[in-house]
Amino acid sequence: MIDYESHFVGAIDSLHAEKRYRVFADLERIVGRFPTAIWRDGDRAREITVWCSNDYLGMGQHPTVLGAMTDAVSNMGSGAGGTRNISGTSHPLVELERELADLHGKEAALVFTSGFVSNEAAISTIARLLPDCLIISDELNHASMIEGVRRSGCKKQIFRHNDLAHLEEILKAADPERAKLIVFESVYSMDGDVAPIEAIADLADRYNAMTYIDEVHAVGMYGAHGGGITERDGVAHRIDVIEGTLAKAFGVLGGYITGSKSLIDCVRSYAPGFIFTTAIPPALAAAATASIRHLKESQAERDAQQRQAARAKDVFRAAGLPVMPSETHIVPMLVGDPDLCKKASDHLLERHGIYIQPINYPTVPRGTERLRITPTPFHNDALIDTLRDALVETWKTIGIPFTSERTSPAERTEKVTPLVVSQAGG
Amino acid sequence: MIDYESHFVGAIDSLHAEKRYRVFADLERIVGRFPTAIWRDGDRAREITVWCSNDYLGMGQHPTVLGAMTDAVSNMGSGAGGTRNISGTSHPLVELERELADLHGKEAALVFTSGFVSNEAAISTIARLLPDCLIISDELNHASMIEGVRRSGCKKQIFRHNDLAHLEEILKAADPERAKLIVFESVYSMDGDVAPIEAIADLADRYNAMTYIDEVHAVGMYGAHGGGITERDGVAHRIDVIEGTLAKAFGVLGGYITGSKSLIDCVRSYAPGFIFTTAIPPALAAAATASIRHLKESQAERDAQQRQAARAKDVFRAAGLPVMPSETHIVPMLVGDPDLCKKASDHLLERHGIYIQPINYPTVPRGTERLRITPTPFHNDALIDTLRDALVETWKTIGIPFTSERTSPAERTEKVTPLVVSQAGG
Ligand SMILES: Cc1ncc(COP(=O)(O)O)c(C=O)c1O
Ligand SMILES: Cc1ncc(COP(=O)(O)O)c(C=O)c1O
Repeated sequence: MIDYESHFVGAIDSLHAEKRYRVFADLERIVGRFPTAIWRDGDRAREITVWCSNDYLGMGQHPTVLGAMTDAVSNMGSGAGGTRNISGTSHPLVELERELADLHGKEAALVFTSGFVSNEAAISTIARLLPDCLIISDELNHASMIEGVRRSGCKKQIFRHNDLAHLEEILKAADPERAKLIVFESVYSMDGDVAPIEAIADLADRYNAMTYIDEVHAVGMYGAHGGGITERDGVAHRIDVIEGTLAKAFGVLGGYITGSKSLIDCVRSYAPGFIFTTAIPPALAAAATASIRHLKESQAERDAQQRQAARAKDVFRAAGLPVMPSETHIVPMLVGDPDLCKKASDHLLERHGIYIQPINYPTVPRGTERLRITPTPFHNDALIDTLRDALVETWKTIGIPFTSERTSPAERTEKVTPLVVSQAGG
Repeated sequence: MIDYESHFVGAIDSLHAEKRYRVFADLERIVGRFPTAIWRDGDRAREITVWCSNDYLGMGQHPTVLGAMTDAVSNMGSGAGGTRNISGTSHPLVELERELADLHGKEAALVFTSGFVSNEAAISTIARLLPDCLIISDELNHASMIEGVRRSGCKKQIFRHNDLAHLEEILKAADPERAKLIVFESVYSMDGDVAPIEAIADLADRYNAMTYIDEVHAVGMYGAHGGGITERDGVAHRIDVIEGTLAKAFGVLGGYITGSKSLIDCVRSYAPGFIFTTAIPPALAAAATASIRHLKESQAERDAQQRQAARAKDVFRAAGLPVMPSETHIVPMLVGDPDLCKKASDHLLERHGIYIQPINYPTVPRGTERLRITPTPFHNDALIDTLRDALVETWKTIGIPFTSERTSPAERTEKVTPLVVSQAGG
């Protein structure tokens, strides 16, 4: 007799033992008062400041976006009512797909329930439609891309993070007649570093490979119209598939891919994760379109976010706090131990009313446990100063090393990137 | 040199050749006028009647649901702002999970972005956490369950649709010490038949197997509180995991599982498809909770749906139309040929302003191509009569056999269920 329950209890026990058991904070955001939220802990309800939101520009509270959403709910209802094929293709969704194709300068776009599903469904489908495809994947790719690679059933090779020489080595060694798909991200969300997109496109040309980029942490935030790093660097036309989310800078929910008409039509026609599921509600599509259109025109949010992120890094560094190197809006703060990381997060919340969830293995490699801070346009200078003071107090109280106390200079900046399957982003 | 584009063009060409290429109708639903929608075809916009919505009870336009949704948008914004762990656990989502656990009489519940993702993530995670699990799966299970089985990497055996003897044969032959998970649906959405749940639970007890049921096409619609067929038949406590969607009878978006506290905690902690993706917006959670609560109390929608579905079947049968046998609210109408099926659908839309999309292979077995009609409480007697007349005209014009014209009595009612991997529901 198998005692099923004992296996589930055991699996949870082992998470506790490894200090990896996660508790979700019960939060209620307050429109007009971003980044303030109500935190419920048992019977208590308390106002706190969120410092780790992926609503990077606060668009999830923008009046234009909320107006588009409530209008669509009032006019078209709360749901789509079916899969895309079974009466679920709403007019706002058709418009959203046009808007996304335009945003990235591609022929067509396809919307999924999430960025996760878009990566899983698109990577697996594209690779399966190619003859004997070899997928060449950055070692720090997101879990959803890894799922897509796995689901394809194709052979994969992993290149060291952002390592062009290693990538070229793999391309050179592969059979020239074999189909190849290079999958990578633009902004890596846990470290905030950026891929050498143009150089990767050059290699793809040289070795006749296709390219697939995840711009989830860049769309809306980079480029003159929010088209991501590929727009900023003027290389969107050199990448075959650009994938993104509607759930971070655009502040809504859903994911998408853009590319050539026939490629998009193939994913539309062959991907189970796209076909066999209810379409996103018209109200989400309308809200996303409003957000994208706003950020196509307005540079103010992007400028303010960059300014506040840069200021936060400066202020924290000046206080001796171990800011990890980052080229983007993401501000990772090294703790280096899972238990201390969780304790720091709990202490910040309990003592300072500041919410930054701990990032531990397997989301990041062991030894690089961190707090991941995401300043938005709404985290003003006063909030940054308050956070600095809270961090300094927490670092002292919990006993986390400041920059000057780290044993070697290497350890201060070294980015640990072992050749493992990472699971960034959750 | 590989010409990538040619592979995608070729894949689309072969769909055209097999008459399986799908065109999505661009629809805009109109709150307060369900089941009317605006259909856009190029530059034309026309009012039509939708007869294939999975918004089975019209809850996607219920004032209580829309009110809850717009309130939440106004108060909490358009998105969740993060994954469940990264500040995306909103208070309405916590409440929704409580409501769902209560609906099915289980200890806990977990919400996903869709029913598809809930099946994929839950089945694969549960099976992987058990030692050497054997998954025993109904041959007509939905594509999302098949994805979950595949993703688990576990051995699977498929039993003939709703065939208890075959299921027992497989259970008996398996090593008694081996973990076993039986996965099946309550209402099969393309035929409208129902699984023998209690008998399956009896077999599971006898052979010490776990049970996982998909109630996607039953929640909200069966049982005194909308708990599905498991509630109606008083067997919810005998099934380990009950899975459902928020996107059909509840009229919103999202999926869920309910089960024991430790099982739910395991899926929460181990499933990539749950962990590494943005949480559903608080507004969707609030809308879903409002819908579930309404349907817990109100029997009116369920009664009206059953009445209209029964009436539709009677009226169509009396007109000699080939209604396939169905025990539920689903009314499948046999065409038996993919080309005629598509033509009938196009004709109904063009000539009669009636939208029922064609259901062809691989969604259903070849030779059983059909129109799948879903009467709701809002499809009144006059609309049913109009549809009957339109169907009769279409059957004659296109040349589809009426019941009396089918060659053998067997062919009239026989349900073709070859032992194949079906992909129902898209
Ligand atoms: C790099 C990356 N890709 C994809 C996703 C998934 O996007 P979504 O939240 O829309 O599912 C995430 C995080 O959620 C991510 O970090
Ligand atoms: C049996 C079954 N399970 C699961 C799903 C997926 O549910 P959702 O639309 O919420 O993704 C569907 C159809 O969409 C279905 O028919």
